[in-house]
Amino acid sequence: MQTELTADVEPIRFHGQTDGTLDLIDQTLLPVELTLITCRDVETVWEAIKLLRVRGAPAIGIAAAYGVVIGMQTVGDDDAAAFWKRLDEVTDYLAGSRPTAVNLFWALDRMKRVAHQLRDSGTSITDIRIALLEEAKAIHAEDRETCRAIGRHGATALAGASNFLTHCNAGGLATADYGTALAVFFTLQDDGKDLHVFVDETRPLLQGARLTAWELAQRKIRATLICDSMAAQVMREGRVEAIVTGADRIAANGDSANKIGTYSLAVLAKAHGIPFYIAAPISTFDMAIESGDEIPIEERAAEEITHGFGRQTAPAGINVYNPAFDVTPAELIAGIITERGVISPVTRELVAQMFAAK
Amino acid sequence: MQTELTADVEPIRFHGQTDGTLDLIDQTLLPVELTLITCRDVETVWEAIKLLRVRGAPAIGIAAAYGVVIGMQTVGDDDAAAFWKRLDEVTDYLAGSRPTAVNLFWALDRMKRVAHQLRDSGTSITDIRIALLEEAKAIHAEDRETCRAIGRHGATALAGASNFLTHCNAGGLATADYGTALAVFFTLQDDGKDLHVFVDETRPLLQGARLTAWELAQRKIRATLICDSMAAQVMREGRVEAIVTGADRIAANGDSANKIGTYSLAVLAKAHGIPFYIAAPISTFDMAIESGDEIPIEERAAEEITHGFGRQTAPAGINVYNPAFDVTPAELIAGIITERGVISPVTRELVAQMFAAK
Repeated sequence: MQTELTADVEPIRFHGQTDGTLDLIDQTLLPVELTLITCRDVETVWEAIKLLRVRGAPAIGIAAAYGVVIGMQTVGDDDAAAFWKRLDEVTDYLAGSRPTAVNLFWALDRMKRVAHQLRDSGTSITDIRIALLEEAKAIHAEDRETCRAIGRHGATALAGASNFLTHCNAGGLATADYGTALAVFFTLQDDGKDLHVFVDETRPLLQGARLTAWELAQRKIRATLICDSMAAQVMREGRVEAIVTGADRIAANGDSANKIGTYSLAVLAKAHGIPFYIAAPISTFDMAIESGDEIPIEERAAEEITHGFGRQTAPAGINVYNPAFDVTPAELIAGIITERGVISPVTRELVAQMFAAK
Repeated sequence: MQTELTADVEPIRFHGQTDGTLDLIDQTLLPVELTLITCRDVETVWEAIKLLRVRGAPAIGIAAAYGVVIGMQTVGDDDAAAFWKRLDEVTDYLAGSRPTAVNLFWALDRMKRVAHQLRDSGTSITDIRIALLEEAKAIHAEDRETCRAIGRHGATALAGASNFLTHCNAGGLATADYGTALAVFFTLQDDGKDLHVFVDETRPLLQGARLTAWELAQRKIRATLICDSMAAQVMREGRVEAIVTGADRIAANGDSANKIGTYSLAVLAKAHGIPFYIAAPISTFDMAIESGDEIPIEERAAEEITHGFGRQTAPAGINVYNPAFDVTPAELIAGIITERGVISPVTRELVAQMFAAK
């Protein structure tokens, strides 16, 4: 089934007041179907996170925060003991949906802290419930602002370029709003620029083909899908002025871990004289890590490569190497675009300076 | 169904005399099933070529030559007029199986020429039939010798290395025997070397995952399958000492067209100080082409990328760029391994010298 692409679909949208509902795009059905899941109970939110219907660190945090609001709807305002018992239940339950998602715990902790602080100051259950919804909305709004600020700084830095290439999905689907790398393109479009983006399909899980291509099409940005191995060719053809990707973790010296294939792009960009940018929020920096050498590379299941499309495409028993990430050394990065500004050149000193800035 | 991998399966094998049969591996079923097709009539040979059950320029030529022998089995030795009419029918019919395959026409012309020369010298139909089988076997044997010579020269040049990377399928399945790039690895193994080969899966059609991984497994060479975007990472990890690929067409200056992604590998190899080699027979050189700039890049269907695995993996209507080949400039190639020796460095002068050599 082909869905109609419209620009006004938000990946996460809460409707109503404390008795409201949460709509999520089911990302597992993209790009073939655009289906909204309406969450009326916490179990549906939990399942959406667990089954990757909502994915991307910021988006998971936001969905979980709204999930707390929805989870509290099963208890009334008149039974305080039941309310506090339920709050622990709901937050523990949601925390188990993706046990390695840092943003999930961060958002749940923030929700609990707000409720506990108000309890200590004697606020009514009714008002605490309102405060929880406000907190979830604040988490949502802050992420939206971060995305918009990344987009603004990136669009200023790249105002001279119209032809881009990106990898994986660093878009709105993973966040509240504009995403990180894609925020730069969305903002350039908002500025009236006619741009074109080459989208790496991003093997093995095809986030570029499935999600980034979909997001760009939805916003009517001209985009061309390529296989990862074609990126060098389009660079050689002079059709790329800048490359922008997201990052999963950035060391104190600026070395950046991102989806496998990013390092390849950065090396190819240098060979073709094309600037390579990372776009990521300040929360991506792990200042406890001195350099990329300390970032462990997660290896994923061989089946993602050998059976990635529901069909066996390699001999049974073949040895497979499937690193989920690679690390791009700072010296290959022209700039790191954050919500506070662009770090360029990427040096330990300038990273520290931006991290300390407000 | 998983097949047992054995080293003694040949992609093309003719059994018996002029009334014999031809066995072909059905490459469309690899790597999941190893099935031999026994061709007892020319229609089965035609269909095997048409449906890509046999593929690769040399292999198509060899299969077609044997196809002529089999096609002639429907007429007896006692009716000369029927024999010559049938020869035209069979060769015309086989020529229509893959209308753009140069080796196909070359092999069919060679078969017809032999028959016509013997007719002019008054040879009997019985003996012409024998001569046709001998010619098909000669085409087969010459290709085998070419593969073995490429393997020998490559193994000598790369005797110091044990860790390789290859792209697409330049193996025995496309030829009579050892293939081109894979001939180097097979010969090193014959020399007693314990080697390891990283195999790019080679999007969009996955010839690396489907065919090269299968051939290496069959010969018990240690191999690891990776996605194309992971090649830079394994180079960075110091796990690749040399890269060897095939080529489809080489210009007079050494610029080499090969499967999309080859140019990317050559650029990445240079950045990591790893030598990049092409292995190809002299017949691959097109001396009428001065440089790679004159080689047109074939674009293939978008569906290979968007629906490559029987499932839609990109939004409907997305623009796609799907170049089948790219051109690696001579200056990125450490050497071109041919059946006559290794051209290194790759210069117009040394290409001309090797082309003129015997």
